[in-house]
Amino acid sequence: MKFSIEKKDTSSRARAGFFHTKHCCVQTPVFMPVGTLGTVKAITPEHLQKIGFQIILSNAYHLFLRPGCDVIKKYEGLHAFMNWKRAILTDSGGYQIYSLSQLRKITSGGVSFSSHIDGRKLFIGPKECMDIQNSLRSDIMMVLDECPPYPCERSYAKKSMELTLAWAKKCKEFHHDKGRCLFSIVQGATYDDLRQECAERLMSEGFDSYAIGGLSVGEPLSLLMHTAGFLSEILPENSPRYLMGSGTPQDLIDLISLGIDMFDCVMPTRNARNGTAFTWKGKVVVKNASYKTDKSPLDESCRCITCRKYTRGYLRHLFHSKEILGAMLLTYHNLYFYNDLLRRCRKAILRGTFSKFKKTFKASYDPYSR
Amino acid sequence: MKFSIEKKDTSSRARAGFFHTKHCCVQTPVFMPVGTLGTVKAITPEHLQKIGFQIILSNAYHLFLRPGCDVIKKYEGLHAFMNWKRAILTDSGGYQIYSLSQLRKITSGGVSFSSHIDGRKLFIGPKECMDIQNSLRSDIMMVLDECPPYPCERSYAKKSMELTLAWAKKCKEFHHDKGRCLFSIVQGATYDDLRQECAERLMSEGFDSYAIGGLSVGEPLSLLMHTAGFLSEILPENSPRYLMGSGTPQDLIDLISLGIDMFDCVMPTRNARNGTAFTWKGKVVVKNASYKTDKSPLDESCRCITCRKYTRGYLRHLFHSKEILGAMLLTYHNLYFYNDLLRRCRKAILRGTFSKFKKTFKASYDPYSR
Repeated sequence: MKFSIEKKDTSSRARAGFFHTKHCCVQTPVFMPVGTLGTVKAITPEHLQKIGFQIILSNAYHLFLRPGCDVIKKYEGLHAFMNWKRAILTDSGGYQIYSLSQLRKITSGGVSFSSHIDGRKLFIGPKECMDIQNSLRSDIMMVLDECPPYPCERSYAKKSMELTLAWAKKCKEFHHDKGRCLFSIVQGATYDDLRQECAERLMSEGFDSYAIGGLSVGEPLSLLMHTAGFLSEILPENSPRYLMGSGTPQDLIDLISLGIDMFDCVMPTRNARNGTAFTWKGKVVVKNASYKTDKSPLDESCRCITCRKYTRGYLRHLFHSKEILGAMLLTYHNLYFYNDLLRRCRKAILRGTFSKFKKTFKASYDPYSR
Repeated sequence: MKFSIEKKDTSSRARAGFFHTKHCCVQTPVFMPVGTLGTVKAITPEHLQKIGFQIILSNAYHLFLRPGCDVIKKYEGLHAFMNWKRAILTDSGGYQIYSLSQLRKITSGGVSFSSHIDGRKLFIGPKECMDIQNSLRSDIMMVLDECPPYPCERSYAKKSMELTLAWAKKCKEFHHDKGRCLFSIVQGATYDDLRQECAERLMSEGFDSYAIGGLSVGEPLSLLMHTAGFLSEILPENSPRYLMGSGTPQDLIDLISLGIDMFDCVMPTRNARNGTAFTWKGKVVVKNASYKTDKSPLDESCRCITCRKYTRGYLRHLFHSKEILGAMLLTYHNLYFYNDLLRRCRKAILRGTFSKFKKTFKASYDPYSR
């Protein structure tokens, strides 16, 4: 995988770059909408493309359970199955196995668990993880990892890191299609020395890139920022740095400043379904009584369909009436906002105005509306 | 209201026509998607327009309760509130008061009832009914009526019809904006003589048109067809004939043959959300196991986005996973199908081939998939 850096920011570690996948050139910094089950909830792939997304994230564990790899193989991959023509990154789903399934047992060989859907007994090890992602034909595959909780004892973090390292090595052995990328995942909980060791050992093994896992699991924001910044300095300059599972608009800007290039998060889509919109001034809880007859759009400065055609008062009515259109319109807006935010960050980096952009954003974005 | 007939079918009572409203010319026969609460569920107004719908139906009773007329007045009507630029017909909601609200009491003056949302005590009489629809700025308003159940004693049907007649007269008195149409509603349950009397007395009163109410309430299909055909011969030739609340694709074709011009029904949208699609060969229950790896579209001959881009296997996966996109894609398809069906009926009438079209449709549409 070749990651080209177009421009580095002089005031921070931010950079603008791009890399090619089989399906699409991905320009960074980039936000990947989450399409766990082969659909980004409440939006069509046509609209995702229209907004401008170049890559989405899906989940190998979830798709393995339903509809199952046999089904997706018949379609020759996830792209055709779900009608998405651009790039797909699949998370292995290690995190989901731990959080969703019962009766899980972790050994050096992999994870035995019961399906959270029907209780079936299943096993996923590095080979299975790669087999699943191969049948999905993901543009970017993630290694199987163990994601320790927060807080986490050092001894457990160390043991878990060793497991993640061993699995990463195994995954690489089963990675045959070099046209598709394989990203490893740096673990080590909140211990800098473990994080550093994990990163260095993965780098000496050699992967297309090195994602940062095990963050956004309940730790204080300062610890997330510290770990991201610490690792950003260790990880190779010429690979895109992907921090898994973050975050708010403010966090993304701060993480970009620290040199992170790739993001995914359920926040824009999940919040949309709960009636919360992101705007350039902060979050808007659409159901609030104050919007009852508000004829203004969610965000005066936003050019998305929702903001051009619908008012806060109407959106409030849709959420009060539990109408599906409410989730549809807010999902569209929130994803448009996230894409716009990253697009503007990129443009600012290219123009050498990122520091100014960040300052302006923070001045107008209500910090208490996290 | 001027209803122009372009062509009459020679083999049946079907006709192709059009009428103008403030917002749009409506070509008949026409199907109106149901947007009870100011949104046709799971589809955007942009998509409704793209499909080709010229008129949708909404519900005065529901909008009166939520968001309330004060809100919609601020938007200067329902069109601006919901971002729908073409025609809107509003049902008075008489039927919904009876079916949804508690503690209702009907007097000659109107209906007292408790809101099905919050229990508030409310009253709607002919004046209130017209006030609500005036604030909605509906293109076509419906009079307040009482819709008797099926079966219904003759004595009750007669009494109810008298009430409906009295209310219709009152509604007309409160109908001041002649740029908007007022349709009366023929009641009389399953008694031909009452139906005839009701129709004739409404006609002598004079309304923009005379809808047929009180059908699709549980009576056998033969009785619905009989009543529709019976009234179609009595109602004026030069008004569009609107049968409220029907029906299946086969029923629509039969009713068009009987001279009915306007339809509304929740069937295409509600069935879509339950995972049932309408096709030119009959209904398709998307969740069926047989579609698990089916790479064909819902309907090979359909040109809608859903059929051009998505397979039965993927749609099945979406419904099994309870994903909103499933409801969105099936709603689009079902409404496209209904619009296409009526569009083709109209074209066939204009070409003088309606009888052949009807025969071909029935030969390919599975009658058991009702």
